[in-house]
Amino acid sequence: MRLGMIGLGRMGANMVRRLLRAGHECVVFDLDQAAVEALAAEGATGASSLEEFVAALTPPRPVWLMLPAVVVDRMAEQLAGVLEAGDILIDGGNSHYVDDIRRAERLAERGLHYVDVGTSGGVWGLERGYCLMIGGEPASVAHLGPIFQALAPGKGEIAGTASRKDGRSTAEQGYLHCGPAGAGHFVKMVHNGIEYGLMAAYSEGFNILSRANIGKAGKASDAETAPLRHPEHYRYDLPIADIAELWRRGSVVSSWLLDLTAEVLGRDPDLARFSGRVSDSGEGRWTVATAIDQGTPAPVLSAALYQRFSSQGEDEFARKILSAMRFAFGGHEEKR
Amino acid sequence: MRLGMIGLGRMGANMVRRLLRAGHECVVFDLDQAAVEALAAEGATGASSLEEFVAALTPPRPVWLMLPAVVVDRMAEQLAGVLEAGDILIDGGNSHYVDDIRRAERLAERGLHYVDVGTSGGVWGLERGYCLMIGGEPASVAHLGPIFQALAPGKGEIAGTASRKDGRSTAEQGYLHCGPAGAGHFVKMVHNGIEYGLMAAYSEGFNILSRANIGKAGKASDAETAPLRHPEHYRYDLPIADIAELWRRGSVVSSWLLDLTAEVLGRDPDLARFSGRVSDSGEGRWTVATAIDQGTPAPVLSAALYQRFSSQGEDEFARKILSAMRFAFGGHEEKR
Amino acid sequence: MRLGMIGLGRMGANMVRRLLRAGHECVVFDLDQAAVEALAAEGATGASSLEEFVAALTPPRPVWLMLPAVVVDRMAEQLAGVLEAGDILIDGGNSHYVDDIRRAERLAERGLHYVDVGTSGGVWGLERGYCLMIGGEPASVAHLGPIFQALAPGKGEIAGTASRKDGRSTAEQGYLHCGPAGAGHFVKMVHNGIEYGLMAAYSEGFNILSRANIGKAGKASDAETAPLRHPEHYRYDLPIADIAELWRRGSVVSSWLLDLTAEVLGRDPDLARFSGRVSDSGEGRWTVATAIDQGTPAPVLSAALYQRFSSQGEDEFARKILSAMRFAFGGHEEKR
Amino acid sequence: MRLGMIGLGRMGANMVRRLLRAGHECVVFDLDQAAVEALAAEGATGASSLEEFVAALTPPRPVWLMLPAVVVDRMAEQLAGVLEAGDILIDGGNSHYVDDIRRAERLAERGLHYVDVGTSGGVWGLERGYCLMIGGEPASVAHLGPIFQALAPGKGEIAGTASRKDGRSTAEQGYLHCGPAGAGHFVKMVHNGIEYGLMAAYSEGFNILSRANIGKAGKASDAETAPLRHPEHYRYDLPIADIAELWRRGSVVSSWLLDLTAEVLGRDPDLARFSGRVSDSGEGRWTVATAIDQGTPAPVLSAALYQRFSSQGEDEFARKILSAMRFAFGGHEEKR
Repeated sequence: MRLGMIGLGRMGANMVRRLLRAGHECVVFDLDQAAVEALAAEGATGASSLEEFVAALTPPRPVWLMLPAVVVDRMAEQLAGVLEAGDILIDGGNSHYVDDIRRAERLAERGLHYVDVGTSGGVWGLERGYCLMIGGEPASVAHLGPIFQALAPGKGEIAGTASRKDGRSTAEQGYLHCGPAGAGHFVKMVHNGIEYGLMAAYSEGFNILSRANIGKAGKASDAETAPLRHPEHYRYDLPIADIAELWRRGSVVSSWLLDLTAEVLGRDPDLARFSGRVSDSGEGRWTVATAIDQGTPAPVLSAALYQRFSSQGEDEFARKILSAMRFAFGGHEEKR
Repeated sequence: MRLGMIGLGRMGANMVRRLLRAGHECVVFDLDQAAVEALAAEGATGASSLEEFVAALTPPRPVWLMLPAVVVDRMAEQLAGVLEAGDILIDGGNSHYVDDIRRAERLAERGLHYVDVGTSGGVWGLERGYCLMIGGEPASVAHLGPIFQALAPGKGEIAGTASRKDGRSTAEQGYLHCGPAGAGHFVKMVHNGIEYGLMAAYSEGFNILSRANIGKAGKASDAETAPLRHPEHYRYDLPIADIAELWRRGSVVSSWLLDLTAEVLGRDPDLARFSGRVSDSGEGRWTVATAIDQGTPAPVLSAALYQRFSSQGEDEFARKILSAMRFAFGGHEEKR
Repeated sequence: MRLGMIGLGRMGANMVRRLLRAGHECVVFDLDQAAVEALAAEGATGASSLEEFVAALTPPRPVWLMLPAVVVDRMAEQLAGVLEAGDILIDGGNSHYVDDIRRAERLAERGLHYVDVGTSGGVWGLERGYCLMIGGEPASVAHLGPIFQALAPGKGEIAGTASRKDGRSTAEQGYLHCGPAGAGHFVKMVHNGIEYGLMAAYSEGFNILSRANIGKAGKASDAETAPLRHPEHYRYDLPIADIAELWRRGSVVSSWLLDLTAEVLGRDPDLARFSGRVSDSGEGRWTVATAIDQGTPAPVLSAALYQRFSSQGEDEFARKILSAMRFAFGGHEEKR
Repeated sequence: MRLGMIGLGRMGANMVRRLLRAGHECVVFDLDQAAVEALAAEGATGASSLEEFVAALTPPRPVWLMLPAVVVDRMAEQLAGVLEAGDILIDGGNSHYVDDIRRAERLAERGLHYVDVGTSGGVWGLERGYCLMIGGEPASVAHLGPIFQALAPGKGEIAGTASRKDGRSTAEQGYLHCGPAGAGHFVKMVHNGIEYGLMAAYSEGFNILSRANIGKAGKASDAETAPLRHPEHYRYDLPIADIAELWRRGSVVSSWLLDLTAEVLGRDPDLARFSGRVSDSGEGRWTVATAIDQGTPAPVLSAALYQRFSSQGEDEFARKILSAMRFAFGGHEEKR
C-alpha cells in the first residue's frame, strides 16, 4: 500500500522506515528537505511541496500526519485545499481528542475522512513496533488495516492471554479500532496518564530506597527539623541498580518501564546526568482534566502530574505562603 | 496557685507571664540563667538548680515542662528523683502521645502523676490565650483547673455556639480534658495535622491566583512544554494582598490563619523575604502515621506534608528517576 | 439606588432584603410569581414580565442576575433584547469566569456593560453580609459602589489588619474590584477551591479523632486485614463536639467553617442525619482544571475534590480493577 | 541441599515443590498435618513435631519460615529452643523489616543466624519462579545460595539489560543480597508500595476509560450536581478488555500487572464478580510510614493506599463532616 507521511521527526521517520521494511511504499514530506532526502535515500518517495506530495499518491489517498499537536490544524486546513473527496487524513501525533471530534466534523463537510491514531512506542518503535489506538469511521480504519499491521508489533514473542479467544480482535496484533473520531487519542491520552502514574510509583519507591541510609549521617535535630526517631532503622546502603534489575525477574512490579530504568541505572547508578526537572507534555494534563470533567477520582494520576509541576518550580509562591504563615503564627524563621 | 515552670523559651516564658498576670505564683527554672533572671524581674521566683526549684514548691507540686520533645524524657527522669509521691508532672510541649502513655505508666510506679497538655497559640498566646488540650487522670486535671483557666483564652469576645448548652464543658473557656494519658497530645497532634492541611489549601489557592497572569508572558511552547491552550484566559494581575483581606470579611474561608496571611501580605505582598523552604516539626508526620496505623484515609493532610518534604529537596532522586525514564523511552532531554 | 434583581431563590431574595434594609429600591423578577409577591410584600417592586421589569428601572439600568449558571446565557440573551446601551448586567451567581470573558465581549458589541460578582456568604449572608469579588470595567464597578457597600459586611467588628493602611482599598469593607471581566468569578472560583481544601482538612482530622478508639474493639486480624500493631495506642473515646468548640478558642485552626462545625456537632454529635454522600457544584472542579491548565500543583485541592467524587461512588470500576488484580496475582478473594 | 520449611500454605507449599523439582531435599512442618502429608506424598520428608523436624536436618540447619507475620516471633522463639548454634533461621514471609533487625540481634546472642527474604511471585511463583530480596550476614546468605537459585526464576527468557555486565551480581538470576538484617524485607516492603502505586495508576486509568460514555446518559443537572459541560465529548463505549490486551503490545505501559488485568478482563469484562472492597495487608502501610519517617515525599503511593482505606469505608465520618459543613453554610441537603 502507498502511504503519504508528513512530519519526519524522530517518530515519523522511523514509522516510514518500518513501513518500507514491511514492503509498503511511502511518499514523504517535511519542511526540512534534508529529512525528506534522508528517507528518499532509504527508499521513500520524497516530495518538495504539498502539491507534489498529493500528486504522488493514489486516491483514496492516505495521508498520515506526524506533527506537533499545535500545527496539526494548520496543516489539515492546507491539505483540505489540495486533497480530494474520499481521501483519508490520519493524525498520528498527540492531539487532544476533542480536536479530533471537531476536525472529523469539519473535514467530513468536504468529503474527507479523518482517522486519529494514538501512537505509543517512543524511540523504540522502529524495532519493537508501535502500539496503535485508533479512532474513526469503520470503513476508513478497515482500509488502513495493512498500514496498521505493519506499524504494530504483531503477536511476536509476547504470550497470548489465556482467557481471550484468538482473533477476537486486532488487539493481539498491537493495534485496535477503539471507536469513532477521537476514540484513539482518548485511549492514548489515558495511556499516557497511566504512564505518568506508573513512573511516579517507581520514582517514589526508588527514592525511598535511596534514602534507606539517612540514619547513618548525623542528621540535624533542631526545632525546625523533625528528628529521626530511630536512626538505627535507616542504615542500609542499598544497591539500587541491582534492585531494579532484580525486580525485572519474577516480581509483581516487572514492566517495560522498569526494564528501561534498570538500563539507565546500569549505566549511571546515581543518575548524575539528570537534574530532576521533569517536563510534561499535554496528555497527562488532559487525562486529569478529563477525570475532573467526568467526576472520576484520579488522585494517583494527579499526584504524578503535580510532582512534575513542582519539579518545574511552579509551586514557589505556595511554598512562600506556607513559610509566611509559619513565621506569622510561630515566629519560625526559614531554615537555610 | 503556685506552679513550677521548667523551660523558659518563647512559649514557656510567655505562659509564666500570663500566669503572673492572672495572680498565680510561678517558680521558674532553665539552663539559661539569664532567662530565669528576666522572669524573676517580672515577679517569678527564680531557681538556680532543680533542688532549689523543687524546694520552692508546695506538695502536691505542679511542675510544668515546656521543653523540646527530645529532652522531656531526660528531664522527667531527673525530676522523678527529686519529686515526691503525689506531685504532678505536666508536659506542655509537643511530645508524641505514645510517649505520654509510657511516661504516665512509669511515673505512676513512683507515685507521680502525669498530665499531658497540647498547647496551641504560638507567639500570640500571651495576649490571645492558649488553647489547651489535656490528657491525664481526672483528679490531677481537676487540681490544675485554675492554672488552665488562667492560660486559656476564656470566653472573651468569641461568640458562643448556639447549639451548645452553656457550661456543658470547659471547652468554651478554651481548655478541655480530652481523656487519659496521651489524649491531650493526640488531639494536639491532629490539630497540627489539620493546620498543615488548612495552610496548604490557602497556599495552593494563592498560588493559583498569583499565576492568573501567565497568559500575558510569551510562554515557551516546545515539545517539552505543554502549551497554554487559551492564554487569553490568564491575563489577570490580581491584587493578592487585598484578596486576602477581602476574604476575612463575610467569606466562607475566613479564619485566623487567613488573618495572619493578610497581615504578612499587607507588609510584603511578594513575600520576598521567604525562599519557600518549609520545615515540618513532628506533629504533621505523626498525624499521617497515625492515620495509616488506623487505616484512616488522609489524602489532604498527607499531600500537605509531602509538599513540605519536597520544599526541603527530599524528592530529588525521585525526580531524577522520572527524567531518566523519559530519556530512556522517548529520548527526552531535560529542559534547562 | 434602584437595582433590578432577577432570580429570587435563597440567595437572590436575601440580597434584595439586605438592599431594602439599607435603603435601596429593588425591582424584582422571577419565573415563580409567588417569590416575586413575597418580596413585593417586603417593599420591593414586583414585575410580572421582563418588559415590566425593565420599564421599572432607570437608565443606566443595573440588572443583577442571581440564577443557576446554566441559565445565565439564555437570560442574558433575552435581556440584551430589551435593555438599552449603557445598561449594566451583573452576574452574581456561580458562572465559570471564562463565560464572563465571552459574555462581556458579546454584550459590549451591543453597548451593554457586564460585571461579574463572585458572592460568598451562603444562607448567612443576610445577617453577616456578602463577601463580593468583582470583575468588570472600572466605570461600571464604580457606579455600582453603593450596592456593593450595602451587600458587603462592612468593617463591622472584625479587627483591622495592622500592616494595612486603612482605606487602601474597599477590601476592608468586604468587596473588591479584582480586575477586568471574569476576575470576580476567577477569585470566587479559587475561593471555593480553598473552601474544599479547608473542609477536607477538618474532615480528615475529625475522622482520625473519631477513630482514636479502634484499639478497644477486637479488630479482625486475618491475612486480608493489616493488624493494628499497637491497639493500646488507640483507646481514646474523644469528645469530638467539645474539641470542635475548644479549637474555636485560641487555637491555630479557628475559622468560620470550624464555628459551623461546632454548631452542627453541638446538635448532632454523631452526624446521624448525614450519610456522607458529598456533592460538588462546579467551582471546585474549575479550580483544579485551572491549576492543571496553568501547570500549578494543587495536590490538596485535588484530593479534596476526589474525596467528593469517591463519596458519590464514581470510583467503583477503579476499585474493582484493584480487586481483580489482587485476585489475579495472589488469589486474594475480596473480604465481605 | 536439605532445607527445612515451616508453614505449608499456598506460598510455602509451592516453594517446597519448586525446591524438590530442582533436586533439593525438604523437611516440612505445619500445624496442619494434612498439608505435611500432601507434600510428603510429593517427595518431601514430613515431620510431626518441631523436634522431629530439627532432627531430620543436618547442621548448620537452614530453617525457612513461611508464616503469617504475626506468628513469626512465637515460632522463632520456639525454634531458638531446639536449634543449635550455627543454624540459620530464614523468614521468607512478610515481616516488617524493623522486626528483622530486632530478631537478628536476639538470635545472634544465642549463636543463631537470621536471614530475611522478601518473596514476590504470588500464586505464579511455582512456575515463574520467586523474586527474592535478601537481608542478613554475607556468610549465611552465601551458604543458602543453591536454595535461592532454585527458587528464583533464573535468567530464563527475559532479555538481559544491555548496560549491565553479565554476572555483576545475582540480580539477573532473580535473587539478590541487599544488605544486613532487614534489608530484604525493606526492599520487599518498597516493592509492595510500588505495586500499590502501579495498581492504582491502572485502576484510575481504566475507570476513566469506563466512564468515557457518560455524555450519553441524560445526566441529572441540579444545583447539587455539577453539569457536564460538553456531553458530546463523552460518547465512547470503549472496549476495555481489548484495550488492556492492546497495551500489552508495544506500549509504554506494558507490565506483568497489565498482563494479569488483561487476563481477568478477558474472562469478565465488567468485573461483575468483584464488589470493589480492596484489602491492604501491611507492606503498603509500612512503605508510607517509612517515607514519612524519612521525610521522603510519597504522594502517589499514599494516594494508592488511601484509595483502599476508603474502599473499606474508613472515610465515613470524614464524609459526614463534609456534608454537615455544606448543610451549615449553604443549607445544602445531601443528594440521595
